[in-house]
Amino acid sequence: MIDLYAMVSPNVQKIYLMLEETGLAYTPHQVNIWKGEQFRPEFLALNPNAKVPVIVDGEGPEGRPYTVFESGAILIYLAEKTGRFLPREGIARHDTLQWLMVQLTGLGPMLGQFNHFCRFASDNAYAVSRYTTEAARLYRLVDDRLGRSRYLGGEAYSIADMATFPWFRTEARLFGQTHPFMGVGSAEHPNLWRWFDEIAARPAVEKALEVIDRHPSTLATATTDEVDRVFGRGQYARRS
Amino acid sequence: MIDLYAMVSPNVQKIYLMLEETGLAYTPHQVNIWKGEQFRPEFLALNPNAKVPVIVDGEGPEGRPYTVFESGAILIYLAEKTGRFLPREGIARHDTLQWLMVQLTGLGPMLGQFNHFCRFASDNAYAVSRYTTEAARLYRLVDDRLGRSRYLGGEAYSIADMATFPWFRTEARLFGQTHPFMGVGSAEHPNLWRWFDEIAARPAVEKALEVIDRHPSTLATATTDEVDRVFGRGQYARRS
Repeated sequence: MIDLYAMVSPNVQKIYLMLEETGLAYTPHQVNIWKGEQFRPEFLALNPNAKVPVIVDGEGPEGRPYTVFESGAILIYLAEKTGRFLPREGIARHDTLQWLMVQLTGLGPMLGQFNHFCRFASDNAYAVSRYTTEAARLYRLVDDRLGRSRYLGGEAYSIADMATFPWFRTEARLFGQTHPFMGVGSAEHPNLWRWFDEIAARPAVEKALEVIDRHPSTLATATTDEVDRVFGRGQYARRS
Repeated sequence: MIDLYAMVSPNVQKIYLMLEETGLAYTPHQVNIWKGEQFRPEFLALNPNAKVPVIVDGEGPEGRPYTVFESGAILIYLAEKTGRFLPREGIARHDTLQWLMVQLTGLGPMLGQFNHFCRFASDNAYAVSRYTTEAARLYRLVDDRLGRSRYLGGEAYSIADMATFPWFRTEARLFGQTHPFMGVGSAEHPNLWRWFDEIAARPAVEKALEVIDRHPSTLATATTDEVDRVFGRGQYARRS
């Protein structure tokens, strides 16, 4: 049994996709970051970085329970545990890891900044422009890749796709109306949405999304002070 | 022989560290991003994401030359090629990957934003505060980890350390005077600097840094227009 510490974020959704594809038994535990549950000692013992997702695999390496944080590390861990969705060696393995990294180091962090400024500091014109420009560039990059390859890593569905799909789904939900290039099916990115529709139709993805959507965002219940704490601003800011 | 496409950035420095540690023969090729060399067709054929580092391994998998982009993917590729600095399995492997990911998804992208705003848009008080707060948090996280573990991944020097060391070195050089908590040897982070000094004294690291420092930043030779192009701002901005 795997315990999954979760919230609604795309980084957590990746892990649901992988758990459903591999058929591993798991129990989700919701962590309300607005209430500061990620700073509780028992959570920091799992992840000192105070972020979800985290998994605890009751049947870890060397016959002991094992904790993994960071969505990219969890995907690689589960892929190597099951022998699925990441080839064990060769070109297909390393092509998959490269495109996984594009999501982990670029698409995720930069769309994260885009989301922050557009939703919570939209009067900051410089930052909104900076991250909108980068978001548009990343959409073009992925669309171009998917015009030359069926999936991000190559011919097979992999952890690179699982890492990336939830980000486009989330952006479409949040910004599909205000930022047309992010809308599902946008004519600007035909290859991206061909790939998106194909993934969305996978039975394991349908199942995962059904579980994910049972737990809507808890942001609506957060106070201004709680939001400031999560964003490290206001009285929680450090200016050096 | 490995071709390394390079500039002075910490993400490239990681690869020099790994190449020197493993003793693989390599040739560095400087890419002047301010002059737009990363957008040339021959470079985009190596990395459609238009970023360094990239390596081309003349002796790749399946007996052919092989191209790898994304610093994290390059480190894993070289570790698996040589069987060094990333354990092949078990807890030590996955602990190393988790801390590698903390650098790739957090420390790198967030210090990157910190650097951007402090150096190139320092009148943006909200963003400067946002990324200063996050930088300070990440320094504390790494210091705390290194108070409990000799290296980031555990008892052995690994690609997680190689990925992280150049970032602290770069920040100390850029901001050691203005942001005391980033200064080499800062009393605020004793464990971090104990680890830093130990790594800096490794013969392979000394050799790598000597090679790296032969090619100083080309930023000083860039025009305002060239800087705007790299940052996607001014006439190069897309506002959706």
